[in-house]
Amino acid sequence: MSEKKQSLRRIDQVTMIDNVRLSDDGTSVVIIDQTQLPNRTEYLTLQTPEDLYDAIFKLKVRGAPAIGICAGFGIYVLARTIGTEDYDGFFRKFKEYKDYLNSSRPTAVNLSWALNRMEAVVTGHRDLPVKEILVLLEKECREIQAEDRRMCRAISEYGLSLIKDGDGILTHCNAGPLATSHYGTALGPLFLGKERGMEFKVFADETRPLLQGARLTSYELSSAGIDVTLICDNMASLVMKNGWIQACFVGCDRVAANGDTANKIGTSGVAILAKHYGIPFYVLGPSSTIDLSCKTGEDITIEMRDPDEIKKKFYEKPMAPEEVKCYNPAFDVTDHTLITAIVTERGICRAPYTESLAKIL
Amino acid sequence: MSEKKQSLRRIDQVTMIDNVRLSDDGTSVVIIDQTQLPNRTEYLTLQTPEDLYDAIFKLKVRGAPAIGICAGFGIYVLARTIGTEDYDGFFRKFKEYKDYLNSSRPTAVNLSWALNRMEAVVTGHRDLPVKEILVLLEKECREIQAEDRRMCRAISEYGLSLIKDGDGILTHCNAGPLATSHYGTALGPLFLGKERGMEFKVFADETRPLLQGARLTSYELSSAGIDVTLICDNMASLVMKNGWIQACFVGCDRVAANGDTANKIGTSGVAILAKHYGIPFYVLGPSSTIDLSCKTGEDITIEMRDPDEIKKKFYEKPMAPEEVKCYNPAFDVTDHTLITAIVTERGICRAPYTESLAKIL
Repeated sequence: MSEKKQSLRRIDQVTMIDNVRLSDDGTSVVIIDQTQLPNRTEYLTLQTPEDLYDAIFKLKVRGAPAIGICAGFGIYVLARTIGTEDYDGFFRKFKEYKDYLNSSRPTAVNLSWALNRMEAVVTGHRDLPVKEILVLLEKECREIQAEDRRMCRAISEYGLSLIKDGDGILTHCNAGPLATSHYGTALGPLFLGKERGMEFKVFADETRPLLQGARLTSYELSSAGIDVTLICDNMASLVMKNGWIQACFVGCDRVAANGDTANKIGTSGVAILAKHYGIPFYVLGPSSTIDLSCKTGEDITIEMRDPDEIKKKFYEKPMAPEEVKCYNPAFDVTDHTLITAIVTERGICRAPYTESLAKIL
Repeated sequence: MSEKKQSLRRIDQVTMIDNVRLSDDGTSVVIIDQTQLPNRTEYLTLQTPEDLYDAIFKLKVRGAPAIGICAGFGIYVLARTIGTEDYDGFFRKFKEYKDYLNSSRPTAVNLSWALNRMEAVVTGHRDLPVKEILVLLEKECREIQAEDRRMCRAISEYGLSLIKDGDGILTHCNAGPLATSHYGTALGPLFLGKERGMEFKVFADETRPLLQGARLTSYELSSAGIDVTLICDNMASLVMKNGWIQACFVGCDRVAANGDTANKIGTSGVAILAKHYGIPFYVLGPSSTIDLSCKTGEDITIEMRDPDEIKKKFYEKPMAPEEVKCYNPAFDVTDHTLITAIVTERGICRAPYTESLAKIL
């Protein structure tokens, strides 16, 4: 199942991480094993139901869009192996594989969304021969990825219009290619600009406690040849004071109707520092993260996580006494008054957000 | 050399860490081994020149005041073993021990300062019998500790006057008993208040990359029965937004004439957040850290440290790719406009600092 490749594919002159793809012969899904990053760039070739389940369950592939793309490719790869021309027999087995894959991370919305899209192709074409259904399935799973790429590309174009060659950019957490397809969201403008010969100086917050900035963002950017400097979260103030930052780019998990934005813990602190130093602060994400049913950030529930992520995870030994309490929120909400603009694939929204966000949806 | 004690001494009704002390019989220095914290509370009994050198060199005792106190006790313990009544013979050996201890951390100002004080006792009383010089030496080393305790106590009293029972306090890095004697500086008001039956809710920033907040501050506070919650540095904004913080207390490494204050990296970010949320931000430290020769923070040089502190230290395996650059400043400068007051053993200074700081010196 495991196949190592040391080379990264060069796309559009910039070395990009190709995190999920369908093999050329359509018999496997090839993913980068994110659990091995940043220490090993290892590609896995997934062919069996168990391979696919395991990859999603063990977070070898992570990030909502990436999981959806992997599941789409995966169910297509499995459908090809069913080996019957009988529709009922084919569909029974297809459904069995689908339910199995869908159980790998039951709360991942993009997983069931992608699998349902694939199932709809099968049930919508029951009159066609199975081999023609397979052609449509391949088309559909490639379209799921293509749509995500187009979305990321559009966000990247809009984001890139906000910065200029040579700018210093600060980013927090990870909203790059590993979690999506190709460009990513918050990091997208940096990859797109690099393709066009622009040189940015990126500062990546390490993003405690799970270190997505250190492990993933710095990996993605340096792999693409983009100038990246890793800092601890508490160094952002000094980096801004030094005059090294012209814009902040962050992703988003949910955007309320008034523009209040939930994102990785620490994002609101970066926004407050940016305001203090007079630096524009941009939120980038798909329009699907705008949730008009949340009037303000007050309506967004913050997930609390295990204290051991702070005290023990990644360390050789515990870094705080066993009896010490931890407060470990996964997200915080950045007030809309701190946000210079919200960048989606449908355009750039500015205050008043209640109007601009409603308008693009 | 090593002696384990699991109990902490109870002082003034509050269990305080007793990090450096002279044994009751005067034959050894007993320290807490800070390199084992927070996983093991291990006391070391230091008797030989090699024991003492090793403890300072290997950072088993750290924090400028604590090193000075340890060296004072140490040279006294060694002087007792010289075993001659002849002044010249005694002084020759004393000087040999002193130079040896002084070489353990050549750049530590308090180390040579304390040893020079002890030497001055010897050279100032060459007409006395050696056994009377030894009495004066014991008195002097105990006085070095007592002075530090009085200084910490005075800072603690002034600091305590700024908060009230039940307040939530946010602190960054470590300026507690382990680095000084008894109360510490920035943490002093919390211990003093606890002795008087007050209950604070303290939030300790873990303080990346060296985790002094997680390893030392949370240990000191929880050992004293003070309610402490450990957070990652990037969670301070949310904790403040939640309304849980009534004041920030931080230490200082150097204070310029205009009040600009150098302290552990991340301090300036905390100050900016505090201002945003309308929370008072207090700097606490001895008046000896005020350096009128520095007109502003611009005159303070920031020490840069090894990137591996960010990428590798404490971790089981590296958390960022080898080729990724890091920016790792040890300190930042907090602008005086962000500081509500500077608290020293001589009183509380407020803006305009150029006047108030000059006045207390």
